[in-house]
Amino acid sequence: MSFTTQDSSYMARAIQLARKGWFTTRTNPRVGCVLVKDEQIIGEGWHEKPGFAHAEINALNRAGDNARGATAYVTLEPCAHHGKTGPCAEALVEAGVVKVVSAMLDPNPLVSGKGMQILQNAGIEVEHGLMREQAEQLNLGFIKRMTTGLPRVVVKIGMSLDGRTAMASGESQWITGTDARRDVQRLRAESGAVITGSGTVVIDDPSMNVRESAYIANPHFAQPIRVIIDSQNIVEPNAKIFSNEGHCWLVSGHLSEKDYPANVEQKTVALLPGKDKISHHKIDLKALLMLLAETGVNDVLIEAGSGLVGAFIEQEMVDELVVYMAPKLMGSAARPMVQLPLETMQQNIELTLGNIRQIGNDLRLNYYFKKA
Amino acid sequence: MSFTTQDSSYMARAIQLARKGWFTTRTNPRVGCVLVKDEQIIGEGWHEKPGFAHAEINALNRAGDNARGATAYVTLEPCAHHGKTGPCAEALVEAGVVKVVSAMLDPNPLVSGKGMQILQNAGIEVEHGLMREQAEQLNLGFIKRMTTGLPRVVVKIGMSLDGRTAMASGESQWITGTDARRDVQRLRAESGAVITGSGTVVIDDPSMNVRESAYIANPHFAQPIRVIIDSQNIVEPNAKIFSNEGHCWLVSGHLSEKDYPANVEQKTVALLPGKDKISHHKIDLKALLMLLAETGVNDVLIEAGSGLVGAFIEQEMVDELVVYMAPKLMGSAARPMVQLPLETMQQNIELTLGNIRQIGNDLRLNYYFKKA
Repeated sequence: MSFTTQDSSYMARAIQLARKGWFTTRTNPRVGCVLVKDEQIIGEGWHEKPGFAHAEINALNRAGDNARGATAYVTLEPCAHHGKTGPCAEALVEAGVVKVVSAMLDPNPLVSGKGMQILQNAGIEVEHGLMREQAEQLNLGFIKRMTTGLPRVVVKIGMSLDGRTAMASGESQWITGTDARRDVQRLRAESGAVITGSGTVVIDDPSMNVRESAYIANPHFAQPIRVIIDSQNIVEPNAKIFSNEGHCWLVSGHLSEKDYPANVEQKTVALLPGKDKISHHKIDLKALLMLLAETGVNDVLIEAGSGLVGAFIEQEMVDELVVYMAPKLMGSAARPMVQLPLETMQQNIELTLGNIRQIGNDLRLNYYFKKA
Repeated sequence: MSFTTQDSSYMARAIQLARKGWFTTRTNPRVGCVLVKDEQIIGEGWHEKPGFAHAEINALNRAGDNARGATAYVTLEPCAHHGKTGPCAEALVEAGVVKVVSAMLDPNPLVSGKGMQILQNAGIEVEHGLMREQAEQLNLGFIKRMTTGLPRVVVKIGMSLDGRTAMASGESQWITGTDARRDVQRLRAESGAVITGSGTVVIDDPSMNVRESAYIANPHFAQPIRVIIDSQNIVEPNAKIFSNEGHCWLVSGHLSEKDYPANVEQKTVALLPGKDKISHHKIDLKALLMLLAETGVNDVLIEAGSGLVGAFIEQEMVDELVVYMAPKLMGSAARPMVQLPLETMQQNIELTLGNIRQIGNDLRLNYYFKKA
């Protein structure tokens, strides 16, 4: 397996195309495809959203009969299954493509390699692994869901330099500036679900929806599911979070008898045995995340208070922290960044620093949790 | 007043020369001087340390008789006073210099402009203000001391992402990595005094001295004064901080009867009336800082626990925070970044973010306090 710089430039284009579906593919992976013949791109495609054609089909449609004899560059192994659009591997065979280069194999262990097998069986030359790492970045959530049955979990935190997320009274609007808050809209828009806690809903009464026109102007955009963890069943049916377009989950250990709007679905989740008095820490968050993954959610964003965030970290369910740090001191009486009682430095949770970016007057810092 | 790019390049060289005294001028300002004749640099000088020749004298000595007819570029107004080396303004007159360009006037309101007056009275052309802002950066501490009678105060904090400086038990070694700790050596080396609290001395038993050979190999380098605020007179004479080369101040509201080593000087400082139970908050820190300024200290570094740091911030005595932030979570039971009880967001202390730099795995962040 050896690739030329020409190969890389076609695959880079395919990755660029895949990104066009960044905010809309949701339960499906982001995929791009480029068809090349005689050193000319003769067809391009990407996947837009569930139910719509796959990237390969879109590229083949663009190329038409010209596809015969072409090479396909695709960011993910062509599918082998009969979905809404038929298997892409068979479509490539039928179109007369002679070579398929994929950046990565399908991460789903049940189907991985099957698309390539169909192609090979039809006498098509296949290669994979070109720009694999970059292609994986397109689908971190999808890959995690396919390999573990859990969505990728990102926690967003807006805090002061001294690591505080609210005053003791609960007052927290606004810690960060408008630019940082606009950036959070992007985090929501790329997530299949946004999880928050009853405390945040009761105190701040947020909408937690995507409002930036850059995202909602796209007719294919769907609001993420808003998930409210309400261990003590205190959220009222008139909360603002229920009043917007899109589906909501209300999660507790037991059903509430309150009369919620039609877009609200109550979910009961198991409780962990022998947990302390912080109620959110009792919810089996892994069970909740598995439920979301089963619904097709690849990426979860958590926007919650320090108690719920602490519970997710304590239960080792978090992949990434996105911290917006405001240039201010909120003082030692204010609420912590995470509710997480540790006693020794050996218990400290080590992270890996990723991107650093100044957003308005705030700093955005991405940290990754180390894998065990 | 109009300057050419040639003027700027000579002044830039003078600023570069001044920086050579960064770690040694201590009570004196950092100053550089360049003598130019026929578009050639004929002499350069900088001030090395108190008691040694001023920058202008060093440059004149290099130039010798050639100085007659030259232009002098100097980062600070030449002095007019009879110190250990005689007034530089007079030396420039005697050497036959025809023009003097200074980046800034003397910040001391009692002498500001007097050096320029001596030069003008002798028929020498004078100009000032060229690259003033850059020249001011050489002497932020000296300027503050001359204009306010207080030293510039920098607080160094090593903390976790969640803003914690020690576990509840006091355990704090080591939060940041070796690269960050080496960087702190530079902060100490550029300070006239390092202030810490009795808690840190009793729990960590630190040396608080400069140990990096880059600084101590210079024979002109002097250790900063180590200042221990010991409100409750609990520091024992055998503390490691007293065992190293250099002078120490032991500061309290009242003298201790313990028998300290010869390099330890006890200082009593007034207590503030009506303060809360956190003892360090009772010490009149402004009085202490004035005492240090009177001794000639331009720059103070504070390396202390959250209580003492909180007291300095509460008493509005801090100019800059240098935060080394480690990529880890220490949890909500750990000690805060600053002990500072604030109740509402309106009381939050706003800062201005300066430099951002990754040092090893840690982030170094410089924040400035806004002037009232």
